[in-house]
Amino acid sequence: MKKHQVVFQPSGRRSAVPAGSTVLEAARSLGVDIESVCGGTRSCGKCRVVCEAGTANLSPFTPEECRFIEQKERAEGFRLACAAEIRGNAVLFVPEESRRSTQTIRKEAGKLPITLNPAVRLFPVKLLPPDLTDPRGDYERLAATLAECYHLPRPTIDHTVLRELPGVLRQGNWQATAALWLEREIVAIYPGEVEEAYGLAVDIGSTTVAAYLCSLSAGTVIAAESAMNPQVAYGEDVIARITYATEHPDGLESLRGAIIGCLNGLIRSVTKSAGLAPGHILEVTVVGNTAMHHIFLGVDPRPLGVAPFAPAIHRSLDIKARDLGLAVHPAANCHVLPVEAGFVGADNVGVLIALEPYRREERVLIIDVGTNGELVMGNRTKLLSASCATGPALEGAHISFGMRAAPGAIERIRIDSETREVSFKIIGDERWRPEFPLAGARGICGSGIIDAVAELYRAGIIDQSGRFRSDCQTPRLRTTDGRQEFVIAWPEETQLDKAITISQQDVRSVQLAKGALYAGAKLMMKRLGIAMLDRVILAGAFGSYIDKKSAMLLGVFPDCDLDHVSSVGNAAGDGARAALLNREKRRDAEAVAREVEYLELTLAKDFQEEFMAAMFIPHGADAFPHLPGPGTTATGPSPG
Amino acid sequence: MKKHQVVFQPSGRRSAVPAGSTVLEAARSLGVDIESVCGGTRSCGKCRVVCEAGTANLSPFTPEECRFIEQKERAEGFRLACAAEIRGNAVLFVPEESRRSTQTIRKEAGKLPITLNPAVRLFPVKLLPPDLTDPRGDYERLAATLAECYHLPRPTIDHTVLRELPGVLRQGNWQATAALWLEREIVAIYPGEVEEAYGLAVDIGSTTVAAYLCSLSAGTVIAAESAMNPQVAYGEDVIARITYATEHPDGLESLRGAIIGCLNGLIRSVTKSAGLAPGHILEVTVVGNTAMHHIFLGVDPRPLGVAPFAPAIHRSLDIKARDLGLAVHPAANCHVLPVEAGFVGADNVGVLIALEPYRREERVLIIDVGTNGELVMGNRTKLLSASCATGPALEGAHISFGMRAAPGAIERIRIDSETREVSFKIIGDERWRPEFPLAGARGICGSGIIDAVAELYRAGIIDQSGRFRSDCQTPRLRTTDGRQEFVIAWPEETQLDKAITISQQDVRSVQLAKGALYAGAKLMMKRLGIAMLDRVILAGAFGSYIDKKSAMLLGVFPDCDLDHVSSVGNAAGDGARAALLNREKRRDAEAVAREVEYLELTLAKDFQEEFMAAMFIPHGADAFPHLPGPGTTATGPSPG
Repeated sequence: MKKHQVVFQPSGRRSAVPAGSTVLEAARSLGVDIESVCGGTRSCGKCRVVCEAGTANLSPFTPEECRFIEQKERAEGFRLACAAEIRGNAVLFVPEESRRSTQTIRKEAGKLPITLNPAVRLFPVKLLPPDLTDPRGDYERLAATLAECYHLPRPTIDHTVLRELPGVLRQGNWQATAALWLEREIVAIYPGEVEEAYGLAVDIGSTTVAAYLCSLSAGTVIAAESAMNPQVAYGEDVIARITYATEHPDGLESLRGAIIGCLNGLIRSVTKSAGLAPGHILEVTVVGNTAMHHIFLGVDPRPLGVAPFAPAIHRSLDIKARDLGLAVHPAANCHVLPVEAGFVGADNVGVLIALEPYRREERVLIIDVGTNGELVMGNRTKLLSASCATGPALEGAHISFGMRAAPGAIERIRIDSETREVSFKIIGDERWRPEFPLAGARGICGSGIIDAVAELYRAGIIDQSGRFRSDCQTPRLRTTDGRQEFVIAWPEETQLDKAITISQQDVRSVQLAKGALYAGAKLMMKRLGIAMLDRVILAGAFGSYIDKKSAMLLGVFPDCDLDHVSSVGNAAGDGARAALLNREKRRDAEAVAREVEYLELTLAKDFQEEFMAAMFIPHGADAFPHLPGPGTTATGPSPG
Repeated sequence: MKKHQVVFQPSGRRSAVPAGSTVLEAARSLGVDIESVCGGTRSCGKCRVVCEAGTANLSPFTPEECRFIEQKERAEGFRLACAAEIRGNAVLFVPEESRRSTQTIRKEAGKLPITLNPAVRLFPVKLLPPDLTDPRGDYERLAATLAECYHLPRPTIDHTVLRELPGVLRQGNWQATAALWLEREIVAIYPGEVEEAYGLAVDIGSTTVAAYLCSLSAGTVIAAESAMNPQVAYGEDVIARITYATEHPDGLESLRGAIIGCLNGLIRSVTKSAGLAPGHILEVTVVGNTAMHHIFLGVDPRPLGVAPFAPAIHRSLDIKARDLGLAVHPAANCHVLPVEAGFVGADNVGVLIALEPYRREERVLIIDVGTNGELVMGNRTKLLSASCATGPALEGAHISFGMRAAPGAIERIRIDSETREVSFKIIGDERWRPEFPLAGARGICGSGIIDAVAELYRAGIIDQSGRFRSDCQTPRLRTTDGRQEFVIAWPEETQLDKAITISQQDVRSVQLAKGALYAGAKLMMKRLGIAMLDRVILAGAFGSYIDKKSAMLLGVFPDCDLDHVSSVGNAAGDGARAALLNREKRRDAEAVAREVEYLELTLAKDFQEEFMAAMFIPHGADAFPHLPGPGTTATGPSPG
């Protein structure tokens, strides 16, 4: 196969790559991170690179490149990495805005109190050594002592533990500690007396993967780590990844390998920071949306991508972690929480067992906004769930200057209703701009976008339909290349040498996303006969950073007393932790996954109508008695 | 590391081997088979090689070599492969008698009738395809149909089957066949309707491994294969192998790898000859003695080698075949039968469930002579088991011209009481020698040795104590190098250019072995209060070829009506097959393994005394009313 030399700048990584590779494929093979929101399908325009040498050695511009790259930039060597093919030697520069940066938002462990009743427990034993009058087998000796001291019926023993048993019993001079899973199977044996056992709760998000190392004896979180889901390189959202798995022969295995590798990295990292080894982990619990769930298990996710979106399985699974490739104790169980439906996954079940709406009297709406949006509504009498195709706009994707919640991202925005001047905060800095212009902004993340559109509306720059008002006079509202846009940060306030703006298209994307959430919630209220919500809970990493007033002003969810709107952080991860620490939660999960009624919004006759009305800000018809009128009071603390 | 060139003749295999390797290690690394009965511990003297060039490049003679190799032979270049170290280039010749040859005795499947009730059964189903009004998961759809059509409670599903499920259901257009293990777990799924499922029964002997491919739907044996246990290269008997595992860091893993490789070879071979693939095998059942059982499982066998000989586990095990490295269907279960005690293993349990003494009224003695001897005695009221350190003499090892049952081995011997002339039969030839001297003999196998000593006694050449009689006049009884020996075959009747003889030492070895068996049986009769046995069953490959009259004349077992002495072939393998085809047999096995009382002979005060008396031929004191007197009638058909 013919190969060509390629150099990536500024990293300087170089290698010979097969002729015909795309620049994105070459970058992946060299470990050069290039943002690729759409997963290389030429539909997001985020993977722009500049060809610094060998322009003629790349394939001609594709129609998609012409759409995403202006003529002037094309002349300067800009290309889409996913579209340009390498046909000769080339030097390629990856600009700041195309580099994938580490996300700051860590899915921190919640404060949820959990009754301690783990599936794995330790049982210290002292055995009588065998002699010629009592030459019973080591296992029978251990089982008899467990029965005698702890009234445990004869448990099975994992064969990897059996392999260790003779050595461990003799090493500990017939004193040992057995770890039992559900009092049913011996999953570890230690010489002498051991007091602490460990487990890991895992939340596989489409974008962020979080791991919580817990003491199964104390119920505490000992170490927590999160990492970007490396599957992002294969596509930002679940549909892009299902497409990848469908179109590439080893696609599923690549995706599965990526998440297993990521988890094993997190396992090494959390155990190391706790002074432990991966082998100390005796159980793993996992939540994730249905596509993440299937890919993690190595199950073909294709049916999830087409109607009727049937998953391979709903019920929870107990699989040996070794069978999944997880580098924990060889006999450790991996408990995968059940899924509700094709688009309401085990992550949502995690949210449910963490927040327990099935035990509440109050009618609650739980919004879990990740890369897609999941809704649960109801109380102990009845619960409905639904999935909204919000698209990734609320996470900053498909927005001109959208970016992930990473250093340099604008996360808070305020617009003065009179002067239309803008102040903002960027991640990693407590101070408002432009007063402290220490380092420039790089883009706008999800919570910043919610703020931006809510503030544009409150300051009278866009109207209820989301259109820029023609009577608005400010130099920030300008027309570039025939498109209207509002300047959030001037070039000198950014790291990009150009202004960060919100375009009419960006406002539309946010309207579509929030309209889908609102319409979904509205339909659920109708089905349940609820006129007013008692409580709204925002879950997910995104929910933790969102300004709840901006969100309600924008109409992300129906009217509710703002005092009863709260964020709970990574409730899905809390659910994984709850299932790890309390086996009863697994029964809850199984029951609630079966009992929650899934509302397929796309099948509802009145969905389109609700969706149209919900596109307005905050809504085309609904009243918001709990909301201050636009242009009257600021929705948050004003800077300076 | 310094290396030297070594060439093995007549194969011509050559390679550079590390300085200090023994010739045996070098041969193993090159795949040159050298007989090594003791496993390289310099105690059997079977691994003789001739150094043809580079004599000075081998280490000096060891005391063991001086013991096993006469001075004249030492001058000719004879060495023990396990003792001589390579310190320079050398050419080594492996003589015919030191080459390991393929054993002929195949462990053929028995004719035992078995009620068909396998653990794995097939369930054809037709499912309703999912649609938007019924988007249940594939598994839930399958489980609901299994419940509806077959009244099966919700089975679990192996994750490897779950991975295939979406594809298979759609490929078969929602018609499929599920294979369930104990109606509890889905272990395979096929598109469309499938009518036959397959399983494999395995008997891991110390010397021979047998595999029986069975139809789980018809109960028939479709293909059977046996192979030499490649662990023989690491030591002939279980003690030698336990020693090997103890003394080498990766010893256990080498032994385990050897047997797994052997089984996978048998799996390929039986499936191929049946026109199937290894993936068709949905369950495997395994029997083997306790050491084979432990090594197969990767469990440290060391405690089996020292008092109190406690095994790691008695109870049966169900382990995924993939976890053991068996290349069958990835979700297949491997059922390992329970063991009774350190020296009475799962093979003996196999014998028990095949022959069912626990259901009989008659008092039966079952003798399973393999590389070690296992005894079971009793009836439905009570069963005793015991293990006898017979040593491998009854298999032809530790005998001057002993060899395995392979082509060229003398298997039947008759001595004329008057002329003291010898006639014999060799394996693979129905005719008696010396009338048809077509190809020469190479040695004597187990059944031939039993015949030889019984005939020497019957013909008045040895006395009751086993000593050569001084009054016996025949040129066949001669003294070589100060040792008395009896010529069975003259040099021209052999392939060895020398006579095949039975020495006084050989007779002693047989006396020790048979004395151990007899004394064991005698003690068991005493414990059970039995004066006379109703039946004797000879099990094992050896038992199938032994002449029962010779055996009783020799005093291998107490007196019994010869019409009630029978051979049953590989009863252990029959037991594995019974457990494969009838799940109830597994319960029998578990119960009988627990209920059989193990008699530790070495602990019995009266064992030494019984052993001494049993060394006599047939016995020092016991009467044999069912035996014809010595020297009166021939014990078998006489040739010519």
